[in-house]
Amino acid sequence: MRYVERVRLLDYWSIQDSALASEFRHSSFLLMVDRKPLVKKCEDSTKLSFHSYSELQKKLGDYGLSFDSSNSCLLDAVDQNGNEMDAPIDKEDVLRALGHSFDAQFMELRMAMLTIATERERNLLAKFQSLSRWSRTYRRCPKCGAPLRMRISKSAAGCPSCSRFYYPTYSPVAITLVSDPTNSFALLVRHKGSRSGVYTAIAGFAQSGESLEECVRREIAEEVGIPILSAASLNRTQPWPMPDSSLMCAYHAVADMSHKVDACPGELESARWFSRDEVAVALQRTLDDPFLEGLSDNIDDRQKLVFIPPRGAIAHYMIRAWVERRLHINGRSSIENDSLQQ
Amino acid sequence: MRYVERVRLLDYWSIQDSALASEFRHSSFLLMVDRKPLVKKCEDSTKLSFHSYSELQKKLGDYGLSFDSSNSCLLDAVDQNGNEMDAPIDKEDVLRALGHSFDAQFMELRMAMLTIATERERNLLAKFQSLSRWSRTYRRCPKCGAPLRMRISKSAAGCPSCSRFYYPTYSPVAITLVSDPTNSFALLVRHKGSRSGVYTAIAGFAQSGESLEECVRREIAEEVGIPILSAASLNRTQPWPMPDSSLMCAYHAVADMSHKVDACPGELESARWFSRDEVAVALQRTLDDPFLEGLSDNIDDRQKLVFIPPRGAIAHYMIRAWVERRLHINGRSSIENDSLQQ
Repeated sequence: MRYVERVRLLDYWSIQDSALASEFRHSSFLLMVDRKPLVKKCEDSTKLSFHSYSELQKKLGDYGLSFDSSNSCLLDAVDQNGNEMDAPIDKEDVLRALGHSFDAQFMELRMAMLTIATERERNLLAKFQSLSRWSRTYRRCPKCGAPLRMRISKSAAGCPSCSRFYYPTYSPVAITLVSDPTNSFALLVRHKGSRSGVYTAIAGFAQSGESLEECVRREIAEEVGIPILSAASLNRTQPWPMPDSSLMCAYHAVADMSHKVDACPGELESARWFSRDEVAVALQRTLDDPFLEGLSDNIDDRQKLVFIPPRGAIAHYMIRAWVERRLHINGRSSIENDSLQQ
Repeated sequence: MRYVERVRLLDYWSIQDSALASEFRHSSFLLMVDRKPLVKKCEDSTKLSFHSYSELQKKLGDYGLSFDSSNSCLLDAVDQNGNEMDAPIDKEDVLRALGHSFDAQFMELRMAMLTIATERERNLLAKFQSLSRWSRTYRRCPKCGAPLRMRISKSAAGCPSCSRFYYPTYSPVAITLVSDPTNSFALLVRHKGSRSGVYTAIAGFAQSGESLEECVRREIAEEVGIPILSAASLNRTQPWPMPDSSLMCAYHAVADMSHKVDACPGELESARWFSRDEVAVALQRTLDDPFLEGLSDNIDDRQKLVFIPPRGAIAHYMIRAWVERRLHINGRSSIENDSLQQ
């Protein structure tokens, strides 16, 4: 029953500020400065670097810094807690020296999410970034403008004036791997602002009043201008803290290659069908170079597929499953004979 | 290509206030007063009642009322638009007369959602309630307190002072039907504040940094105190506007009946295992009496299973699939040989 007890304790601490405050000095902490978590970089992956309260206070003190419950979030009930510094330390050399003093380093949030080896650590980091960003934004009641009272855990904020409660936003996103009816080609996209050579799956936020299945269909129509023949859940979801707190929900859709691909100019640089062999080469290159160190901004053919997202991204998981032929057309729902509408 | 064009037009109107304003008088409208949408009630289901701008203006005018783009939301791009009245009409007899003048009636939001016959109309109503509630709440920037500028479509609000944009909240919820390993018994719950006799599946909001699979496991531990053996997506999601804008995501989990069921006293009145025959009787009673008119608040045995949610609820769909043996243990994901962690 250990899992049940842990979950109930986490729930209790989320709500009870005084109980959480009394645990604060006995917790272990993850440090994040300027959206850069403190991590240890291994050869082909990354792990989070946790430290005790006393070690953190001492080493931050060496740089004239301190932290307390106002700029930290509750991450988990067992052995890890989070802390974030709002202090204005943004010079790279200070970060380097500080990271070095922990025998670790600060890494850009995106690269950390993409290369952390375990789902548990990725999800803790996503929670940390999401709660700290949300708690820095929600300072005033959107209804009446009064200052909000934020829980120490950052799991909610209450308005003392109009008694409303606000909870951290968490927005569902459908991310879809589109293949052709023979399952031999995949439609991948490159987003505006992304680096040349990295292609990925199509993703977009679900809108109010829309099921995830409708979201898949709408996003593909909006982004690449083609209708789909079918879509099915891949039974896998992932928290993702960029651009904001998102819950990525993996889907597989089938579309006919005879439709003209019409990439939405506002969002995409490129959208193209690739053969399984082409995608397999990019997958292998990504596995061999997980930090994408071989990525050049000056490649000749800007339409070329060079990398896919590294393994921390749900898109990596989906594309890899497709390359390895583990992703089938007409994914069987576990409800048989499902009618289209009740 | 009609679907693609419609989706892109809806996206355009969501953002372009002036274009949407010029369509306003040519739209058709759904009316909602005091969380009561205007509907037509049929023998065993409900449908939304849409009306033209001129009809609505005329009939509302007969009651001294009017509407404009400030209290309406964009619902769809083809033939239905929404409107909501903030006018202080809450007397039942006025609503009855007004509904009658449209050859329709105002129905409580929950009962309307539970009895509307088509997924499309349920989702339009969910969108209407979610956007109108959100746009009434988000009046000031949570960061700086300045008045927000709301889009006519109610799809976003911008802060003229600090340039932040806010979007309607849409919170993912995992809803799970728990069965035993022989798939012969289902664990159903009755929530605090719900009427005696109505049992349903276990549901709860996903928290930041948590996948839906983790949410399923945590919610079952929190609410009924038991660990689960496995969980799988049922490939079905549904927008739901109560208590707030939620995206219900259906799961099936398996748990051992040997664990003591420990219903969380803060949330549940009761949590019990029922046999397939017991659930089948309640399902049939619900199908025969979809408006739950036979539900009495004075039943002798407050632990008795009398009804399940009517067919508009995703829980109805899940429970019915289980009763009809269309929901299998170890629901096969459409990715084969899935390892627990990448």
